[in-house]
Amino acid sequence: MSTQAQDDQAEPVRWAPEWPEAVRWAPDGSAVDLLDQTQLPELATWRRCRSADEVADAIRRLQVRGAPAIGIAAAYALALELAAATSLTPAAFAEKLRTTAELLRGARPTAVNLAWAVDRVAAAAQAGLAENPEAAAWRAWEEADRIHQEDRDMCRRIGEHALALFPDLPDRPLRIMTICNAGALATGGMGTALAPVYLAHAAGRALRVWAPETRPLLQGSRITAWELSRAGIPVTVIADSVAADVMARGEVDLVITGADRIAANGDAANKVGTYALAVLARHHGIPFYVAAPSSTVDPATPDGASIPIEERGADEVRRGFGRLTAPEDVPIWAPAFDVAPASLISAIVTDRGILEPPLDRSIAAAYGSAEAGA
Amino acid sequence: MSTQAQDDQAEPVRWAPEWPEAVRWAPDGSAVDLLDQTQLPELATWRRCRSADEVADAIRRLQVRGAPAIGIAAAYALALELAAATSLTPAAFAEKLRTTAELLRGARPTAVNLAWAVDRVAAAAQAGLAENPEAAAWRAWEEADRIHQEDRDMCRRIGEHALALFPDLPDRPLRIMTICNAGALATGGMGTALAPVYLAHAAGRALRVWAPETRPLLQGSRITAWELSRAGIPVTVIADSVAADVMARGEVDLVITGADRIAANGDAANKVGTYALAVLARHHGIPFYVAAPSSTVDPATPDGASIPIEERGADEVRRGFGRLTAPEDVPIWAPAFDVAPASLISAIVTDRGILEPPLDRSIAAAYGSAEAGA
Repeated sequence: MSTQAQDDQAEPVRWAPEWPEAVRWAPDGSAVDLLDQTQLPELATWRRCRSADEVADAIRRLQVRGAPAIGIAAAYALALELAAATSLTPAAFAEKLRTTAELLRGARPTAVNLAWAVDRVAAAAQAGLAENPEAAAWRAWEEADRIHQEDRDMCRRIGEHALALFPDLPDRPLRIMTICNAGALATGGMGTALAPVYLAHAAGRALRVWAPETRPLLQGSRITAWELSRAGIPVTVIADSVAADVMARGEVDLVITGADRIAANGDAANKVGTYALAVLARHHGIPFYVAAPSSTVDPATPDGASIPIEERGADEVRRGFGRLTAPEDVPIWAPAFDVAPASLISAIVTDRGILEPPLDRSIAAAYGSAEAGA
Repeated sequence: MSTQAQDDQAEPVRWAPEWPEAVRWAPDGSAVDLLDQTQLPELATWRRCRSADEVADAIRRLQVRGAPAIGIAAAYALALELAAATSLTPAAFAEKLRTTAELLRGARPTAVNLAWAVDRVAAAAQAGLAENPEAAAWRAWEEADRIHQEDRDMCRRIGEHALALFPDLPDRPLRIMTICNAGALATGGMGTALAPVYLAHAAGRALRVWAPETRPLLQGSRITAWELSRAGIPVTVIADSVAADVMARGEVDLVITGADRIAANGDAANKVGTYALAVLARHHGIPFYVAAPSSTVDPATPDGASIPIEERGADEVRRGFGRLTAPEDVPIWAPAFDVAPASLISAIVTDRGILEPPLDRSIAAAYGSAEAGA
């Protein structure tokens, strides 16, 4: 790890035309650039990673976050490392491939997308190695770029499908509430829940987004507010507890959130606070939509109760801001996710289309039964 | 203000037998001691105030908070200042009385309770001044002590009435959710919403309290969690967004909150986040109670829409923890209060008893019509 510091080059972030990017392959092929999300919103700087080791470190530090973005960063990292190893013998190159893939997979062991992306790039390289290391490195880069492009396309398709759910209001802006960050900075493209927001904005439609700050790690106020405002989309930050009042004032036309896993019956697990928004939206007669990659739909999980919920460390609540905000000796319960039940979800949008209630039947029709899906 | 620092004496807090105290008259009559709530939970120290000037400073700095506690602190402050002025001529004493009362009233101009308490002590002193300054100072102290004792009694009566709403569960602890701090540290006694919690605990009943942290100023995690745990009552802190999930898991038997103002129709304004808890409690079939002094009931205010809602500074959300947590240029909407509508309130408890639905009729019967109440 000690060799990385001097390679970190803080440079001003240049904007993609429509939304900020989380991960970039450096144009000269010498590095993977990651927007350091731990510094947002105070600083927006790229971390220039010149080795897989540095990318793994950035993943561990949460400088890059969001399952798709992590997968893309790791895929590029493997390609980067192999591009610098083409002078090795095929056997030594194969060993380099094996150890680098292992390093990257271990950076966040529970991130399924990370292992999946690394395995895809490793398989492509392995196939190319039948020819020679140069071909292997080139195939690795092609596969990493393909993963990135597939993710961009996936985001765009989610956006296009979800846009059909956005009512056209000729006389006032459409008011959208989200939670956490399911945006460009979590993916290789324009995000999932925020994809239709970017598309609507690009089409010249007037929008206004409510971003609950999303305790404890504040991805809403730190990241969603940052990326939307940089894209020129009006966004207002609120404390999580203010969402209900905003709805009661008639200031929300629809809620749209991401999802980490969607069960066969349509229950959707997402960042904690999502369930409260689903209940509050129902109480106020506001549609509640979930937008996620189709890979998030898991027909093998029967319902929300079967989704394991990660508990986070109490210190994210007790001293998340570098200050003691709850007594040392008082217990804190800090689940990372909660489950919005299918009964409160107006529709689920994936890159494959819109799933409408009854969600269990829509999911079975589109994704097969638990047996087929598992 | 510059003379105050040397009079601040940080000493370890000694506990009242059953719950922490916010305000104490020093036993030797030389000072008013205030538990410095801005330091909680990191430090629990008394600020020893030897003049009205110092108490006014403590009020301005929010070292003492909660309308009843502020009123008591200011009442004692006036008595303290007058006790040191008994060698003055009656005319000079009267002038001292006038300027000190004005100073204290101005410490938080919108705190109605503060002006009310200061005016009561000033009137008592004025009456005593017909005799001599010594009598005036003594009457002032008696009146301040009476205000404190009345508040203690008010809290106890709220607690006794509310306790009737707590089901007796022989086989498991009663699980209570609250928000913000409507406890001992907001009053001169055992609090309002927390009063029945202290009484139930004193009676040996098993309890467990859920304390949402209450963004942006974290009175739940900083103050409620602190005072309950010091009293030996099990309390668990959660992020505000976790409350819904706790309810869905069947871990909440009742919700009880304070109120800042209760309208004639039963709508109750309280710390922002209260409305969300009311909606969520209804969705989960959990009773939602409001506990407040009868002086909070305002028959002249027809409904919640007529209650002015204070907006707080954006910086409490944007940089409340000494760190930038939302972009500088993104707007933040930060109402301090919201309104739980009467339709979601299971009962309102005051020191005068329990008001049951239909709340508009119960309030009219107990407090008279708008004309009578105004």
